[in-house]
Amino acid sequence: MLQRIKQNIAQYAAIDDSQFHYFFSLLKRKQLEKQRPLLVAGDVCSFEGYVEAGCLRVFCTDTAGTDHVLAFASEDQWVVDIDSYSSQKPAQLGITALENTSVWLIDKASKECLYQRIPAFERVFRLMAQDAVAALQQRLLANMHQTADQRYLEFRELHPGLENRVPQYEIAAYLGICPEFLSKIRRKLMGGTAPGIS
Amino acid sequence: MLQRIKQNIAQYAAIDDSQFHYFFSLLKRKQLEKQRPLLVAGDVCSFEGYVEAGCLRVFCTDTAGTDHVLAFASEDQWVVDIDSYSSQKPAQLGITALENTSVWLIDKASKECLYQRIPAFERVFRLMAQDAVAALQQRLLANMHQTADQRYLEFRELHPGLENRVPQYEIAAYLGICPEFLSKIRRKLMGGTAPGIS
Repeated sequence: MLQRIKQNIAQYAAIDDSQFHYFFSLLKRKQLEKQRPLLVAGDVCSFEGYVEAGCLRVFCTDTAGTDHVLAFASEDQWVVDIDSYSSQKPAQLGITALENTSVWLIDKASKECLYQRIPAFERVFRLMAQDAVAALQQRLLANMHQTADQRYLEFRELHPGLENRVPQYEIAAYLGICPEFLSKIRRKLMGGTAPGIS
Repeated sequence: MLQRIKQNIAQYAAIDDSQFHYFFSLLKRKQLEKQRPLLVAGDVCSFEGYVEAGCLRVFCTDTAGTDHVLAFASEDQWVVDIDSYSSQKPAQLGITALENTSVWLIDKASKECLYQRIPAFERVFRLMAQDAVAALQQRLLANMHQTADQRYLEFRELHPGLENRVPQYEIAAYLGICPEFLSKIRRKLMGGTAPGIS
């Protein structure tokens, strides 16, 4: 498994084995059963996490009690409430497991030690953050001008196989539509206009 | 003016005078007249920019020819199409001046030299990118569950004074509503429920 984190990180900067050894020594594994929280809104997010197996949802609950899904994080993806993590203020977001999930966590103090000791990790997480900015801009623009059909197809492309693992109402809450409308879109696209949907 | 960039950067990491001197030597100033482009969609974004004076809009034009405003960048803010900049693929976004604007640019090759020579800048731009992620998440969630009234008030809070500098249809294109609806919101809020609107 650690081999996979290694590859995840190595795409951003050259890190040698002894540096990886130190990085790995800072990680703690956490196992979550389905529906258990990794972060509860109102708590401070003191970690960043790397998903080894399973799937998490990152969400916000509005004043009417409706959940809005900001992101899914499955295998080989990182997860954090970056606003709470950076400011150490209470999190606006919650993070819960949609499946039994295994995640490697690094706490903020350890991460700062990592940056001090191996500055190349600054580069790694700068480039990761830049990728996150690009992905969020793309999502925001999609919400502004794409149809729900297009957003659904983009979700499938970005998260291959995920729609067979995650309840439909979670995907609807990610797309910003009601579950009934998602069912309608899926039925329409299964009708033949979108090859590959089964 | 360079004093202001210095303060902007110094909030993220300790950079000494000789390091700032090198950083400043990599910047090039560009003056744009109102309505002139800094980046045209389809070109590759090879720079990051710091706005000294004026205001830019970052936008995307959909297939029907409608512009959607992703962001405004005014004094003391950074601007880039990070997706195009990172990948060096053609930009999906355009950037144009809404006022006569003065911007300091650093090109990608110079930025890489900067990171090599002064690794503390990795930290600066990592923290900046993290702030951008937090701001975009906030905006995405606002688009998912806030009313247009709330989004308008949030825009005013985030961009004090900007609504008196920028055409109303640009603000409407940022809020994802039509200009007529924005006028209606403004009239309603001027009616007394939002002190300070004039």
